[in-house]
Amino acid sequence: MSAVQRVRAAYERVEAVDRPEIWIDLRPRAEVEAEARALDERVTAGERLPLAGRLLAVKGNIDVAGLPTTAGCPAYAYRPEADAPAVAGLRAAGAIVLGTTNLDQFATGLVGTRSPHGAVRNAHDPAYISGGSSSGSAVAVALGIVDLALGTDTAGSGRVPAAFNGVVGLKPTRGLVPTAGVVPACASLDCVTVFARTLPEAEQALSHMATGTRPALPGRPQGPWRIAVPPLEQLGELDEGWAQAYEAAVAQLRASGARVREIDLTPFTEAAAMLYEGAFVAERYTAVGSFVDKAIADGVETLDPTVAGIITRARDIPAHRLYADQDRLAALRTRAEAELADADALLLPTTPGHPTLTEVAADPLGANARLGRFTNSTNLFDQAAVAVPAGEVNGLPFGVMLIGPAHTDERLTRIAGLLQPETRVAVVGAHLTGQPLNPQLLALGARLDRTTTTAPAYRLHALRTNPPKPGLVHVGEGGAAIETEVWRLPAEALGRLLTALPRPMTLGSIELADGSQVPGFLCEPDALTDAEDITSYGGWRPYVNAE
Amino acid sequence: MSAVQRVRAAYERVEAVDRPEIWIDLRPRAEVEAEARALDERVTAGERLPLAGRLLAVKGNIDVAGLPTTAGCPAYAYRPEADAPAVAGLRAAGAIVLGTTNLDQFATGLVGTRSPHGAVRNAHDPAYISGGSSSGSAVAVALGIVDLALGTDTAGSGRVPAAFNGVVGLKPTRGLVPTAGVVPACASLDCVTVFARTLPEAEQALSHMATGTRPALPGRPQGPWRIAVPPLEQLGELDEGWAQAYEAAVAQLRASGARVREIDLTPFTEAAAMLYEGAFVAERYTAVGSFVDKAIADGVETLDPTVAGIITRARDIPAHRLYADQDRLAALRTRAEAELADADALLLPTTPGHPTLTEVAADPLGANARLGRFTNSTNLFDQAAVAVPAGEVNGLPFGVMLIGPAHTDERLTRIAGLLQPETRVAVVGAHLTGQPLNPQLLALGARLDRTTTTAPAYRLHALRTNPPKPGLVHVGEGGAAIETEVWRLPAEALGRLLTALPRPMTLGSIELADGSQVPGFLCEPDALTDAEDITSYGGWRPYVNAE
Repeated sequence: MSAVQRVRAAYERVEAVDRPEIWIDLRPRAEVEAEARALDERVTAGERLPLAGRLLAVKGNIDVAGLPTTAGCPAYAYRPEADAPAVAGLRAAGAIVLGTTNLDQFATGLVGTRSPHGAVRNAHDPAYISGGSSSGSAVAVALGIVDLALGTDTAGSGRVPAAFNGVVGLKPTRGLVPTAGVVPACASLDCVTVFARTLPEAEQALSHMATGTRPALPGRPQGPWRIAVPPLEQLGELDEGWAQAYEAAVAQLRASGARVREIDLTPFTEAAAMLYEGAFVAERYTAVGSFVDKAIADGVETLDPTVAGIITRARDIPAHRLYADQDRLAALRTRAEAELADADALLLPTTPGHPTLTEVAADPLGANARLGRFTNSTNLFDQAAVAVPAGEVNGLPFGVMLIGPAHTDERLTRIAGLLQPETRVAVVGAHLTGQPLNPQLLALGARLDRTTTTAPAYRLHALRTNPPKPGLVHVGEGGAAIETEVWRLPAEALGRLLTALPRPMTLGSIELADGSQVPGFLCEPDALTDAEDITSYGGWRPYVNAE
Repeated sequence: MSAVQRVRAAYERVEAVDRPEIWIDLRPRAEVEAEARALDERVTAGERLPLAGRLLAVKGNIDVAGLPTTAGCPAYAYRPEADAPAVAGLRAAGAIVLGTTNLDQFATGLVGTRSPHGAVRNAHDPAYISGGSSSGSAVAVALGIVDLALGTDTAGSGRVPAAFNGVVGLKPTRGLVPTAGVVPACASLDCVTVFARTLPEAEQALSHMATGTRPALPGRPQGPWRIAVPPLEQLGELDEGWAQAYEAAVAQLRASGARVREIDLTPFTEAAAMLYEGAFVAERYTAVGSFVDKAIADGVETLDPTVAGIITRARDIPAHRLYADQDRLAALRTRAEAELADADALLLPTTPGHPTLTEVAADPLGANARLGRFTNSTNLFDQAAVAVPAGEVNGLPFGVMLIGPAHTDERLTRIAGLLQPETRVAVVGAHLTGQPLNPQLLALGARLDRTTTTAPAYRLHALRTNPPKPGLVHVGEGGAAIETEVWRLPAEALGRLLTALPRPMTLGSIELADGSQVPGFLCEPDALTDAEDITSYGGWRPYVNAE
């Protein structure tokens, strides 16, 4: 699909989803199409652009040349002369910016409701919040309008909306992506983040945004991933069904071979509480306080009252309290690092719950504070994090985070890959345990789930391929139960298996003995014409052994 | 000399100098003597104690087990359970603590006058300030009571009193010496420092105090030391004669082979001004503010009013200003590091001048602020520094500092060694240019100052040594003017020359043609008995050439 086609589809999608609050400035379609056309021409001319035609949305506190930077406050707007480095890196690789997205004003909030452009509604259920502050960016990705979107993350703004909208959010190590051209929230903590629907897409984008040096990590000993988890009661009150969803994620990592160890979460949650309750919030006044003071005096109407209150209350926090908080934070960080010890990652729910718009309106500060319980400490401790979807609870996305030391970004992404939604595949021939193609499955990270048979409705053939492969055909009447192995593997791995599948094999749905249906190996009809019917053996292995 | 003898001599010296304000708690003589006796016994028993019997004074804000830690405020006193690590390290190596020394209260000041125990008077002229805040420690070393003394340095407290009292002050890289057991001034900046009369003694002590890890420095290219210096006008107003003294130090480094390059000092002096004028002073309130508030409310009389004023005014500094100052400091640091570039060290006067006690009393804040002009930025920039004496001006010590990046402590000390007070030596024989022993002088770092003759009062002999050496004898009447070379060399090098001098040579004072006297080679009388009188040649070289 050409870049022009992708752009056209995106603008149609913008119309179709009817979520105008996603955008602060959506670029004119003709202008973006012209840019896409030029890009298509460069690609046709042979230029190598790894992100050619990938569509990008940029949070409204990040500079995009040609669009105003507003940070969600029209009165604050300025016209940047150049793209922020993160935007420039993606554009240089061929990404196309559709526009700037809505956010909690001055990136102050985790809710996505604190904006004069309107509350951003959740991609999956408009009665629920999108999460924030990178609200529009996450929803634009979740609704399939763009492939990639930039956010920022100080307290969790690049992760909370990823969780609520069922997308991936990479919160890189501080300093890995330049924060030049970004309106500061807490300048010493801010990170530029990326949203995408899959981990590989997010990782690829990050590789074009990162410019900071990555120090060599100390070598990791061989062996399984070591995952730290808190005892469930330390997670505090969670929404209904969330504890079970979290435990399922832990179980999934354990099942994938990771070693899970329990730690004390207290230093993390105590540090998290300091982010807004302590003196660190004063950095927000340093960033935009004098603007907000003047805007209040001038009666500017597009100031968000909750945000303005937070920032102006930070004016009077004394510096000696900040020093004391920094000392306390350093002590908590030492404890946290001791808890993690040699763990590769800490696995946590991204948030404790997911409120509705109504619930947030009723308690703007309380609802917001709860959301940061697990995310707030990450940047205070100078850690990296990856937020990924981990299933659904009550019809809404549930998300978890992997948190690790600075510069473990790649490692966290690899571990997060183990939490990708799993699927199954049924095999009846050369992919069975011990058979010639079984190593393909193992290489994809598949694990044997169970051995069963098909429903008694199939006939099995030996195809004249090399190596010989099974031709499974659903016949209904006159069929038999054929020996079957069901393997678990990531959905993405199944996709890769399908991508590499040679003729005459196909993948379709196979009915098992218990009546359930799973994807499995079938074949094209014409392969059966000269194939031997081996149904009477009851399965591939008895046939092979008899040969 | 045994440790017991050294202790006795020290207590006699305490009496003799009659400077009771040096001490907060001087330990009872009998107790220290008993400790010394035990130490002598351990040494006699064969134990290796590199600092055995070295006498140590400890600034009153550093924990010494058995003495109260007061930070110069009796109401603040507590009884530490253990030595601070720096004290423990020196004691473990055999040093003996005589007591705790006076300081500017809560280490807040560079003057040495802000103490209920009285202003500490300068070691060389009691009308002048000692400098502070490590006032008592520096004076105890300068007056020869102790060999070593510990100070602390936040704004310059380990360097200013070194300069004013003519001793060495090492201000190690932050973190190299633990600050555990030290009453914090600005906890994030404080360093434990050491005073001694010579660089080697200070360095040896530091080696027993340092526990921090020292990262490997990037390799330094071969070649002469590269010394950064500011243009003289950027030093601002200096005391009379100080610019010349500073220039002499620059010239001395240049003469020793260093390459001197001019830099812009502005980022250093701008950062220095921020230390007290900006928000950083709030960290002092964090440390002791609540104590001071309560002490004022309780009417505690031993609070120093200047110190109490500084600390309580810091209560209301807003945290958002601290964040802004931290940003500004980071920018200044980047500029400062760019100025230094590949320089090995920045050479500066330690202070701009040296006020009297009366001058400080008349303007306690102004006089103090001026003193920190060159020292204040060092810890803010996370740099190391070495303060060394560099001659005298108007009968008082003049001192300079070498400042370099973190962990260049050893390099700075080596460069500082080139600034050791120089002396001269007159040679008339085998040490003359081109003669067999001249390489000895070159190896000691000596440089030819001039060629002249002795006063016409000497006779020269050729001693029957191997190689032949000159026997110079003062005879007065009947003498002649003998060809003489005068060489410049560090006093320490002259000491080493003397230490290695073989019989029958001696070093004594030689009168030159211009009537001045310099140390020079003479000989023992008995060597002359069978020596040839070669006075008629007018010098060693004509005699050798005639042979």
